[in-house]
Amino acid sequence: MGPAEERYKKEIARLVNMKVFTDRMKVLRNSGKKAEIDAFLVVSDKNMRYLAGFSALAIERFAGILVPVDAGNPIVIVPKLEESKARERSAFKDIKTYSDSENPAVMLEKAVKELGLEGATFGVEGFLPFRFYRMLVGCSSDIKTRDASVLFSELRVVKSEEELGLIKKAADVVAEGIRAGIDFIKPGVSELTISCQIERVIKESGGESIPFCIVLSGSNSALPHGETSNRKVGQKDVVLMDVGAVYKGYYGDLTRTVFVGGATKKEREIYDVVAEAHEKAIGSVRPGIQAEKVDAAARNVIENAGYGQHFTHRTGHGLGLEVHEEPYICEGNKMTLQPGMAFTIEPGIYFSGKLGVRIEDNIAVSNTGKRMLSHISKELTVVQS
Amino acid sequence: MGPAEERYKKEIARLVNMKVFTDRMKVLRNSGKKAEIDAFLVVSDKNMRYLAGFSALAIERFAGILVPVDAGNPIVIVPKLEESKARERSAFKDIKTYSDSENPAVMLEKAVKELGLEGATFGVEGFLPFRFYRMLVGCSSDIKTRDASVLFSELRVVKSEEELGLIKKAADVVAEGIRAGIDFIKPGVSELTISCQIERVIKESGGESIPFCIVLSGSNSALPHGETSNRKVGQKDVVLMDVGAVYKGYYGDLTRTVFVGGATKKEREIYDVVAEAHEKAIGSVRPGIQAEKVDAAARNVIENAGYGQHFTHRTGHGLGLEVHEEPYICEGNKMTLQPGMAFTIEPGIYFSGKLGVRIEDNIAVSNTGKRMLSHISKELTVVQS
Repeated sequence: MGPAEERYKKEIARLVNMKVFTDRMKVLRNSGKKAEIDAFLVVSDKNMRYLAGFSALAIERFAGILVPVDAGNPIVIVPKLEESKARERSAFKDIKTYSDSENPAVMLEKAVKELGLEGATFGVEGFLPFRFYRMLVGCSSDIKTRDASVLFSELRVVKSEEELGLIKKAADVVAEGIRAGIDFIKPGVSELTISCQIERVIKESGGESIPFCIVLSGSNSALPHGETSNRKVGQKDVVLMDVGAVYKGYYGDLTRTVFVGGATKKEREIYDVVAEAHEKAIGSVRPGIQAEKVDAAARNVIENAGYGQHFTHRTGHGLGLEVHEEPYICEGNKMTLQPGMAFTIEPGIYFSGKLGVRIEDNIAVSNTGKRMLSHISKELTVVQS
Repeated sequence: MGPAEERYKKEIARLVNMKVFTDRMKVLRNSGKKAEIDAFLVVSDKNMRYLAGFSALAIERFAGILVPVDAGNPIVIVPKLEESKARERSAFKDIKTYSDSENPAVMLEKAVKELGLEGATFGVEGFLPFRFYRMLVGCSSDIKTRDASVLFSELRVVKSEEELGLIKKAADVVAEGIRAGIDFIKPGVSELTISCQIERVIKESGGESIPFCIVLSGSNSALPHGETSNRKVGQKDVVLMDVGAVYKGYYGDLTRTVFVGGATKKEREIYDVVAEAHEKAIGSVRPGIQAEKVDAAARNVIENAGYGQHFTHRTGHGLGLEVHEEPYICEGNKMTLQPGMAFTIEPGIYFSGKLGVRIEDNIAVSNTGKRMLSHISKELTVVQS
């Protein structure tokens, strides 16, 4: 490939990439119009990344995107030290910066005036920090604000093919890690050592971060929110691994539970019930079904087996740039599932002080039914001691 | 010890513990009075923990403490599923809960009315999420809000003996980890493997979490914000380890840089300059000195050696319930250091694409000078290959 051809291909890739972000921005603007919102202020790193292709974590310093709903281009405001990143990666090129000796409030006010938004109703994020809220309403006494969290959530809940590919890749690297963890399990090895092994393999497989890598053995497995400890795996233990990793910003999140040195009849029975609940929930996934119906599909199996009170959490949660987002697969969520939505299916049964079993996979709604995003055996696995 | 005596001792411990929190609350109330604030709304997990001895992370669900400045007891509001934790651990026993089918805004409004705060000026945290802010101002149209971040920061910046003990303990477990990491370094071992080893030892030593464990080798060490990678340590590499761990909520944060298979004359010179800057900064710490003067003590050494442009960050940051808090040891910070303030001293020199050297310790201001909180050799260390 000659240099001219290469430049041409790069330019095409840039334009395609650019289109993703202008399309997303268009959807946000349309939803703003319908909700009678005149503009958005976006400051969370996830929404910035989703809308403009880059993020600048707005913690110590202000960073954000001002999006007019009607006319005008979005304005990006970042501190000077984030300028080169923003210029390189942001899909929107109207970038204003401020130095440490300047006040970002002044920059925000300039941008608000430039876009003629002094009397606007702003849609903001539910987590917009108070001090940035004050900067916004300080720009003009006629500015109004509304919580637009639902609009941002709606915008992100249906994933593109590319996004589903990233979630699948994230689930792949988690699966690599869990397989390595299973190979590593034997009596006398601590939960922490297993967890380190899983983390290393995930990083080596390209995982960019591992926000949680929970390994629970024996009675610890009965704690749905337990933490990896120094406990050493025993001769006849269950070991539960719940691992979340990020690939290019997107989450995969899997759980597997294995038995060391054999499983009792009771343990096999419980595992089978969880596996069936998991299977039935997956079987129920299709466009048009309500989220709570998928939860019910898993819950009914466990209730019918007499373990209802031991299934103490929801069946799943959405996956994307965040590890917990819509659609929540839980009782009471009447959200209708649509093609492109991605989430976990993770029923579990817990006996306090004794053992817990959970099986978790990642799945997306397809045009006709569903598509698994994770691929790892869920056969009952016994690690010989 | 008989059961009666044990009960008695427990009760004394409870009362002493309780006094810590009522004392802190008193300081907050006094600072509120001076600032003409009528009440505080506290929702961040760190401030809740500091003021009431427990935290309920206010993300998916609202949790917070309403503190009247003049009269009346603080009211704690938590979701039902946090109730038992709050009842057990909260220093303040006026606890209101709401179930998933109830609206926390109703509970907050009740509490505001009960305390007669319908016309109050509330001091809130700079990071108060917009949706909780809306709940607060929704309680009464006469409520006013002010950013009270500075008051919360002032409250926490001077540590008690007990807090300094926890920071020291956190620094101890980090030191254990770094020592184990150094023992583990040899050519061919990856940064990730060393990092896993450090993490394991810290967890085994009682560290409750390790928010960062950065191992950078060879040219990677030149990146002040680099990330641990698969890179394998070479025959003649520098290895920089920057590790932060939490013990009972408090942070320790240390950095050590070692050489593999010998150090060149130039490397020794750079290490010595960093070590001298580190030493001079420590030597300058005493009650009454301004934070920027401690920064200057380190910076002058590095500038005089001709490496000023290669020292690209501040000299240090405060440590406590957060890993970055006041006092920031940087140019322009005129905060006067007082006994009980705790922070890092971490000068460094970086040559892009080549190498970086940083030495970081933790220190507190004492009544007469200073007191080291971390204890680990900073002699130039060569790991034989």
